Amino acid sequence: MTAYKQLETRFGRIAAIEDTLGILDWDAQTMMPRGAIAGRSDQLAALKVLSHELMVDPRMGDLLGEAAGDEPRLDDWQRANLREMRRRHQRAVAIPADLVEASSRAAAACQHAWETARPANDFAGVKPLLAEVVATRRAVAQALGDALGLAPYDALLDAFDLGSTEDEVDRLFAPLQRALPELVGTAVENQANRPALPISGHFPIAVQEALGRKVLASVGFDFEHGRLDVSAHPFSGGASGDVRITTRYREDDFFSALMGTIHEGGHAVYEQGRPEAWRGQPVGESRGMSVHESQSLSFEMQAARSAEFSRHLAPLVRDAFGVSGPEWTPENLHRIAIEVKPGFIRVEADEVTYPGHIMLRYAIEKAVIGGDLSLDDLPAAFNDGVKSFLGLDVPDDRRGCLQDIHWYAGLWGYFPTYLVGAMTAAQLVAAARTADAETWPALERGDFSPLLRFMRHAIHARGCLLDRAELIEAASGERLSGVPHHQHLVARYLG
Amino acid sequence: MTAYKQLETRFGRIAAIEDTLGILDWDAQTMMPRGAIAGRSDQLAALKVLSHELMVDPRMGDLLGEAAGDEPRLDDWQRANLREMRRRHQRAVAIPADLVEASSRAAAACQHAWETARPANDFAGVKPLLAEVVATRRAVAQALGDALGLAPYDALLDAFDLGSTEDEVDRLFAPLQRALPELVGTAVENQANRPALPISGHFPIAVQEALGRKVLASVGFDFEHGRLDVSAHPFSGGASGDVRITTRYREDDFFSALMGTIHEGGHAVYEQGRPEAWRGQPVGESRGMSVHESQSLSFEMQAARSAEFSRHLAPLVRDAFGVSGPEWTPENLHRIAIEVKPGFIRVEADEVTYPGHIMLRYAIEKAVIGGDLSLDDLPAAFNDGVKSFLGLDVPDDRRGCLQDIHWYAGLWGYFPTYLVGAMTAAQLVAAARTADAETWPALERGDFSPLLRFMRHAIHARGCLLDRAELIEAASGERLSGVPHHQHLVARYLG
Repeated sequence: MTAYKQLETRFGRIAAIEDTLGILDWDAQTMMPRGAIAGRSDQLAALKVLSHELMVDPRMGDLLGEAAGDEPRLDDWQRANLREMRRRHQRAVAIPADLVEASSRAAAACQHAWETARPANDFAGVKPLLAEVVATRRAVAQALGDALGLAPYDALLDAFDLGSTEDEVDRLFAPLQRALPELVGTAVENQANRPALPISGHFPIAVQEALGRKVLASVGFDFEHGRLDVSAHPFSGGASGDVRITTRYREDDFFSALMGTIHEGGHAVYEQGRPEAWRGQPVGESRGMSVHESQSLSFEMQAARSAEFSRHLAPLVRDAFGVSGPEWTPENLHRIAIEVKPGFIRVEADEVTYPGHIMLRYAIEKAVIGGDLSLDDLPAAFNDGVKSFLGLDVPDDRRGCLQDIHWYAGLWGYFPTYLVGAMTAAQLVAAARTADAETWPALERGDFSPLLRFMRHAIHARGCLLDRAELIEAASGERLSGVPHHQHLVARYLG
Repeated sequence: MTAYKQLETRFGRIAAIEDTLGILDWDAQTMMPRGAIAGRSDQLAALKVLSHELMVDPRMGDLLGEAAGDEPRLDDWQRANLREMRRRHQRAVAIPADLVEASSRAAAACQHAWETARPANDFAGVKPLLAEVVATRRAVAQALGDALGLAPYDALLDAFDLGSTEDEVDRLFAPLQRALPELVGTAVENQANRPALPISGHFPIAVQEALGRKVLASVGFDFEHGRLDVSAHPFSGGASGDVRITTRYREDDFFSALMGTIHEGGHAVYEQGRPEAWRGQPVGESRGMSVHESQSLSFEMQAARSAEFSRHLAPLVRDAFGVSGPEWTPENLHRIAIEVKPGFIRVEADEVTYPGHIMLRYAIEKAVIGGDLSLDDLPAAFNDGVKSFLGLDVPDDRRGCLQDIHWYAGLWGYFPTYLVGAMTAAQLVAAARTADAETWPALERGDFSPLLRFMRHAIHARGCLLDRAELIEAASGERLSGVPHHQHLVARYLG
């Protein structure tokens, strides 16, 4: 057996463990009885150690070296697979085992403390544990950066999103940062001239679920290779060919759950559309977090909140809930779908104010990792950012720097992917609409298939064959930029 | 760290993988979308290989040797833990890796073929694959027997039930085999004099489920450490401290599902009652299949089908389904619970004819493994057994030798544990009733707690501290025999 083939076997085993972790995590959030937490932690820890040990096994390094001899006989996909194997291995061996453990312990302890600190508004209480997280993240950033020839914060960005750097993020964000205050102001003003009529009522969960499943099927979600369940925090997870997504329902509001379901559905169709022939191999994986977010946002934010889809949705909703009246017109549903309202909470933010939430977090995490901002000053810096980007005075840390789990769970370098994802979505959707003029009109019939067809071909089926920048350029004909996103915001909110 | 402590860590990791396999298996039977089968097979295979590799790692053998030096300083539980570690290791290394793989491949292929062969009555079609299964099982039996100093079939028995041998099974079964024809005949006759009134109606599944959960809670099932779901084939599984049981409902019959739920509940309370301090260690596990079956049968067959429990159940059932009439009296429900009717299907058999089903299978599998019966002659031998034990003519193999999955899935040596379990249950229940005279009267109030208390103390909390024979003797004051079981049958069916 060639070295390359042996590597395929080894990476296949690692993928099987990662898939198992995905199912265990889904189970923990949807099905697991409460008393099983301790046992589940043992299972997760044991599997993570096994997966890490398989990766850093010295024989793995040897085989990756020997596989150079196989390269002339490999096809494009195999060669890309070998490249991805090397990247993963390089990252895994770059971080000493004791740092891996210290880092994951610090994050687990801090995340646990955050769960009570947030409702209690107690940043001071969680700060010492957060300091541990930051210290271990900086050490990880340094170790990764040394191995990869990257600046420390770039090494963290790159871990979530291959090839992402501070330079790229600055290039993408800077024009929007300048334009944002006026954009938000004008959007709010325009909207005041034609306000949405509020929709209210009692929306039985069973009816919401049936509606959600119907819409999810039309998005292209394959229920033969996935499930929809309920969890406290919606997510998309599971395993290869077995994609588990969740939502949460409120009986006084169906719209959030429905849009949330479509959002996770966008993540899911990416997972379900990955190249089947490369299941279990690195080249068959999705291409990082911002591309993933581009899929959820293409289907939810771009398509499902469009005027076109609202024309399909309005009669569906009226039928499902037996409602009628002027607030149930397509026009009003669309107004609700694109309502702009500066607020404190990122996950509840609309498309126009959302970039402000991300840009302020990006500025803070760069400064913290770079050593230019101490944790003592983090809450005030956060509140200043909210004031300057959104014009609001944060009343308490619960609605300020304690609101998101990311930093406390060790996810430094993650936030930018949300906005890079929004920009990627806008660029891909523009390309899809150029490629097939029926893409948007089809939404009026609830037909997402032209959009899905484009994404399948341009993104999903390519796995990790290309690097992120190449993938987006191949799909859209242009290097990634913020221009299509800006044009989209102008067309939708300033029109 | 002592060698013993290092072994605890290693076995803890293996247990975490086994627990994970339990959750994945539960998921596959209850939740998994159909298209995920291939990926799930990869996950299971990868985890089984990892678990096996951890066990047969040469360092494991070294540590087990070195731990002899630690033994003087170990307490009783630790010493028993080390003994169980050695047993597991000895079994694992006894079977060459290629035989492990050949055996599991043969079983998987044959089980798959059986799924279509059974409904098609096609024993001839599955026979070549069954021959592979038998060949690999015989090789496994030989290898295990050589390592353990056991005859081949004893090595298979012992794998499911520590210390079980053909001699012991013969000693237990022979008296019942002689008495059975008369027992069945008299029971059927007695029953004809006071037949049960049939119960029929429409029993909504939601109501059945609520009733099942209520009864399951009174059995002692802890929903904080377990779940009840639905699957095509009811089972008890899951992980340590996270026990997942299933049932299946029919709207025209609530009784089977209810008794099935209590049966799995008996398995579950054993799992939930294992010693928490030894979670993840071999000594903390349950003590083999017949002891496990004794728990399900104590709670279902002995307790829940008693006249006493029927007095509690009748008003519960009348209230739940809104039914009344002479067929809903405690007396009639009890008659239904203990109805004797010779039939073809083992899993539908009553308590009196059930031993016949097991004894005929035991005779056949001994002969096949011993080389005294060829697979060509298996269907006829099976049908002869049904005729001689139950007096029935088998109409087709679907209702004959194709009915059970066991042989086709490689589970040779498993069948005797069902009847040894019934005998163990009778002996333990007799001891529980002697220890606390309130044990049976409490059932009239739906109170299983005296029975559970006895089992917790005598069986569950002891894990694998004792060997099976010692455990039963410590619990009941006597060596395991068929006498209490025979007395139970006489008291219940010939009274």
